[in-house]
Amino acid sequence: MPMSHPIDIRKIHITDPFWSKKRDLIRKEVIPYQWEILNDRVPEASPSYCMHNFRAAGRLAQRKQELGSAFEPPKYTYRGFQVLPEDPRAPKEDEFYGFVFQDSDFSKWIEAVGYSLATQPDVELEKVADEAIDIVCRAQTEDGYLDTYYIINGMDKVFTNLRDHHELYCLGHLIEGAVAYYEGTGKDKLLRAAMRFADYVAERFGTEEGKIPGYPGHEIAEMALFRLSEVTGEEKYAKLAEYFIDQRGQAPLYFDKEHPTPKGEPYKIDYYHQAHIPVRQQKEAVGHAVRAVYLYSGMADMARKTGDPELLEACRRLWKSTVTEKMYITGGIGGTHLGEAFSFPYDLPNDTDYAETCASIGLVFFARRMLQIEAKREYADVMELALFNGILSGIAMDGKSFFYVNPLEVIPEACKLDERKMHVKPVRQKWFGCACCPPNIARLVASISNYAYTENDDTLFLHLYLGADLKKNGYRISVTGSFPEEGDLVIRTEAEDVVSDLKLAVRIPSWCEEQYSVEGVDAGKIEIRDGYMYFDVPKASSEIRIRFTMQAKWVVADRKVAEDRGQVALVRGPVVYCVEEVDNGSELGSLCIDPESPVLESRTDIEGVSVKSLEVDGYRIVSSEEGAEYASGLYHTYQGVEKTPCRIKLIPYRLWANRGEGEMRVYLPLMR
Amino acid sequence: MPMSHPIDIRKIHITDPFWSKKRDLIRKEVIPYQWEILNDRVPEASPSYCMHNFRAAGRLAQRKQELGSAFEPPKYTYRGFQVLPEDPRAPKEDEFYGFVFQDSDFSKWIEAVGYSLATQPDVELEKVADEAIDIVCRAQTEDGYLDTYYIINGMDKVFTNLRDHHELYCLGHLIEGAVAYYEGTGKDKLLRAAMRFADYVAERFGTEEGKIPGYPGHEIAEMALFRLSEVTGEEKYAKLAEYFIDQRGQAPLYFDKEHPTPKGEPYKIDYYHQAHIPVRQQKEAVGHAVRAVYLYSGMADMARKTGDPELLEACRRLWKSTVTEKMYITGGIGGTHLGEAFSFPYDLPNDTDYAETCASIGLVFFARRMLQIEAKREYADVMELALFNGILSGIAMDGKSFFYVNPLEVIPEACKLDERKMHVKPVRQKWFGCACCPPNIARLVASISNYAYTENDDTLFLHLYLGADLKKNGYRISVTGSFPEEGDLVIRTEAEDVVSDLKLAVRIPSWCEEQYSVEGVDAGKIEIRDGYMYFDVPKASSEIRIRFTMQAKWVVADRKVAEDRGQVALVRGPVVYCVEEVDNGSELGSLCIDPESPVLESRTDIEGVSVKSLEVDGYRIVSSEEGAEYASGLYHTYQGVEKTPCRIKLIPYRLWANRGEGEMRVYLPLMR
Repeated sequence: MPMSHPIDIRKIHITDPFWSKKRDLIRKEVIPYQWEILNDRVPEASPSYCMHNFRAAGRLAQRKQELGSAFEPPKYTYRGFQVLPEDPRAPKEDEFYGFVFQDSDFSKWIEAVGYSLATQPDVELEKVADEAIDIVCRAQTEDGYLDTYYIINGMDKVFTNLRDHHELYCLGHLIEGAVAYYEGTGKDKLLRAAMRFADYVAERFGTEEGKIPGYPGHEIAEMALFRLSEVTGEEKYAKLAEYFIDQRGQAPLYFDKEHPTPKGEPYKIDYYHQAHIPVRQQKEAVGHAVRAVYLYSGMADMARKTGDPELLEACRRLWKSTVTEKMYITGGIGGTHLGEAFSFPYDLPNDTDYAETCASIGLVFFARRMLQIEAKREYADVMELALFNGILSGIAMDGKSFFYVNPLEVIPEACKLDERKMHVKPVRQKWFGCACCPPNIARLVASISNYAYTENDDTLFLHLYLGADLKKNGYRISVTGSFPEEGDLVIRTEAEDVVSDLKLAVRIPSWCEEQYSVEGVDAGKIEIRDGYMYFDVPKASSEIRIRFTMQAKWVVADRKVAEDRGQVALVRGPVVYCVEEVDNGSELGSLCIDPESPVLESRTDIEGVSVKSLEVDGYRIVSSEEGAEYASGLYHTYQGVEKTPCRIKLIPYRLWANRGEGEMRVYLPLMR
Repeated sequence: MPMSHPIDIRKIHITDPFWSKKRDLIRKEVIPYQWEILNDRVPEASPSYCMHNFRAAGRLAQRKQELGSAFEPPKYTYRGFQVLPEDPRAPKEDEFYGFVFQDSDFSKWIEAVGYSLATQPDVELEKVADEAIDIVCRAQTEDGYLDTYYIINGMDKVFTNLRDHHELYCLGHLIEGAVAYYEGTGKDKLLRAAMRFADYVAERFGTEEGKIPGYPGHEIAEMALFRLSEVTGEEKYAKLAEYFIDQRGQAPLYFDKEHPTPKGEPYKIDYYHQAHIPVRQQKEAVGHAVRAVYLYSGMADMARKTGDPELLEACRRLWKSTVTEKMYITGGIGGTHLGEAFSFPYDLPNDTDYAETCASIGLVFFARRMLQIEAKREYADVMELALFNGILSGIAMDGKSFFYVNPLEVIPEACKLDERKMHVKPVRQKWFGCACCPPNIARLVASISNYAYTENDDTLFLHLYLGADLKKNGYRISVTGSFPEEGDLVIRTEAEDVVSDLKLAVRIPSWCEEQYSVEGVDAGKIEIRDGYMYFDVPKASSEIRIRFTMQAKWVVADRKVAEDRGQVALVRGPVVYCVEEVDNGSELGSLCIDPESPVLESRTDIEGVSVKSLEVDGYRIVSSEEGAEYASGLYHTYQGVEKTPCRIKLIPYRLWANRGEGEMRVYLPLMR
């Protein structure tokens, strides 16, 4: 099967109404707000101290230069995983504050900026970014190291706590940000800084005598290094990534040597880090969900690059474990907030889940990389599901507040009173001390075309249906549609200065259940393979109209998912629907539906936007309380169920909690 | 309304087949096993170090006596809440080990021994107990203090950590044990030691200048002191109890002064201790469930004694909050294992609950005390429910293993893999380091008649239907029946040497739904009040036959209990039934029942005992997996429910997990 790669982000013009709006939101709201956050200028949010730290490290570098051999570097003292100043608004100029991984906040921001500038030039923003890059680069040590926590707190303990201290995580994000900024602007200052840091790491790590036989506690460097290698053409970065992947989980376990702990504990903590056994032997998606899918993404990059069949098989197994045993219908992953982790297979509680926005984003990273290896719709279906549900639910319609945790069932009172649910928020939060989700959404949305389209020499793959104009092999291609609300897709092609033949590969989504029509291409010329329709782009100008039947339907989870038994969820195309208190009153758990009754489409205004809502006749259960009391007023003899007919309205899950605080629920019980 | 009090345990002869067996189990299995535990002679259980500590403290007292003024007492150093020796089988002779409250294990044991000896004399056991009492009394300091943790670790810090260090809890249990032993044997050595300790505490505590204005972190001393006052006739002990109750929660909050903690924390921790506001203002049952009901029991004692209407009203409110908002259908209380505590109203998860055996026992204490004030069946109904379900579930049929936590839904795999359920055990455990539940069951069962009957000058109250012979006011009364399996009760009366008229007050259980028949008493002579039938005992010998209709029925929780919506539980009389994997296969959550189909009675052999089981026709849901895949193999288009008819067998909840490890479930979904 031919592999593929994303299209150069500068060579695709997004016209899609849905995603353009999201992209504008990122550009106009999230990126500027995030910059204020990085500089501790948002009074209502916890200070980040991110740019503060770079500035402090920069001053240190300057002092070093001024003093020469008279310079005495700071001696490392452990300051905790998160360092807070006594007075949060008056931090000491030369101290490190925030989380040990706080540097990565800049990298995530610059990544989103890079993608944004690639498609929407903005002189002002670019100026701010260049200045920020100057500040960051000033912090880098002469030998290339760049993590302000250790630069400020003492370099003598660099790489001594790989498990928890995120230096290699910061490297990974720095690379991702630097590459995006380079691709978006052509400027390589940050890229060169990232390369120098990567060189420094490559020097220090390995199984050779005198090197550190370790690997990242929080994965991301793996996939970032492959990307750096592709962009720079430098094989050494790929080699470093391959080393990290190959070495992970090899006996003796590195993290256990680094952190000797009582018997019994080590395996568990290695499991959390996906470092319990070598990656090629891993069969089940385990541990911290974000780390896991970041690792799997790196593994997929390596499998694609090396063609290692054993590694590819491991990627396929881990994919299967993730999506067929541990994924919510919203594309959320991470069933438990304990360790923000995967739970055991089929344990998918709806009200205490974690389903972190970042984990779903990582799942999209993994999916796209698998698609690059093999264009099978199983990857794209999940990618689309996560995007339109568990990821976009992470950001408010106004772009100003965010969810970390994406529950499928919320009773606000329970989130306040029940300690097991206190990680679940009933309304989106302004910003977080650990700011991973908002910038992760920003960088994903700003680079959405990387996920919708991939290409190789002779084929253009349409994994998602993103309205866009682009040119390939001398053909002009224009894709229009109105996803996710409608299943129609129009592909206009025009042969301009044809270089070579071009094939289109358009995914047939599983949600259409093979019900679709194609006009403008001879049916006999369409080849169906792995859920994609392949056809040649006509030599003459053409208009190809594809209609994937998109109708509301009830979906049921595998019966092994105990939590969802007897319940169904309503979906329409890739969009999962939910009920909210604002439309249906409180005690949503007492609603039930008759799956035979027709689902009607309606429109609902949410934050000034008209969205497709769905309505269905159902019932509200009112338990008869006429039965005799049993032992206390809390229990009564069952005397049948009293039902009141009601109309139930559902809105897209991603839009919940945009109209104030209230109950929400994805799964609805079947009528009794 | 006339008050009442329990009958002298030595003056009632239990003939009840059900409870006699339980009592024999306590005498033959639990008490001897517990003694071995107290002496660290059970290799498979964690050592208790309880008698070890008393011996160590005794040696210290002896040295003090020998050395006189040359004796240097140990200086206190904090050793932790639980102190373990380096080698568990070779503890150092003079050190304290175990939990800070380890002394109370002896007290709980001697209490069960006292009750057991009261009804079943046993020369050997009494000899062992007397020797144990000698060891304990040798540990007491000259001034009466008796808590080995501080005696051994340094008396200079006595009463400096009332919140966590359980000295007053140990006092409470010591009193309960000493009173029971005195009542059971007439021997007062331990009683005098308890009085001396109480005197010591009375000297030190109070709001007067120079005294400690504190109160117990773990309540129990309150109710114990009222009991000590009743037995000894010494008003001072009641006064001390009243002080503890009145002072609790008064501003400034004592525990906050004792443990200054960051802002925000104090209230929460006081809430956990029911010390957030004065007790008369408390409206909701909150915090650690065992502590709460122990406090409420003391409050009820005080309300009865003083007639304080405000306090009685607080007791009624807290009762109502407990049983109508926070009680499982099994009589379990404590919805969350976080703090072993009450959750918010109607939050009663079935699979992550705590429902500690001790908490249900405390609820029985509270219920009996409220019954003493006002003979209303609401108290007795709950008392009976807790006894036959959530309490007896705590002990295995062979008396050799125990549950702390009594879940209503168990999937063994989840208890092993899901960190949120790891407190839930799918099989009873041999013994616990914190050994509260097993001895608590022992003392309750050994004194069961105290809960079944109370009396006052002219009335004998039958709250529970416990087969027994007794004499009152010159009448011989013989009660027989076969509860909880059948609802028949025969009361034979014989006027022997009548002193005064006698009224019987027999509870009409709510589970019979007012369906009952009475033979042998003229219907016109029966007065019904608050769920009790009152009638005079005939002057001539009589045989009164009462039949409470006991039939299986489905019970539903209030719809505010989100967890139980759409589900019902099967009960028969006070016995709650459950399904087990051994009878019904695994995946019990896929069973559903038609509440209209008849419930048939059958018999099932459990551990060699034939018990009444119930059988009902139902269905097993097999979700059709023929619908199209949705996004991943985990989700499919709903295509109706596939049901297989099946016969469902239910056994009494208290007997679950006596036939190996497997799934269990109390609530069953209604058929869809």
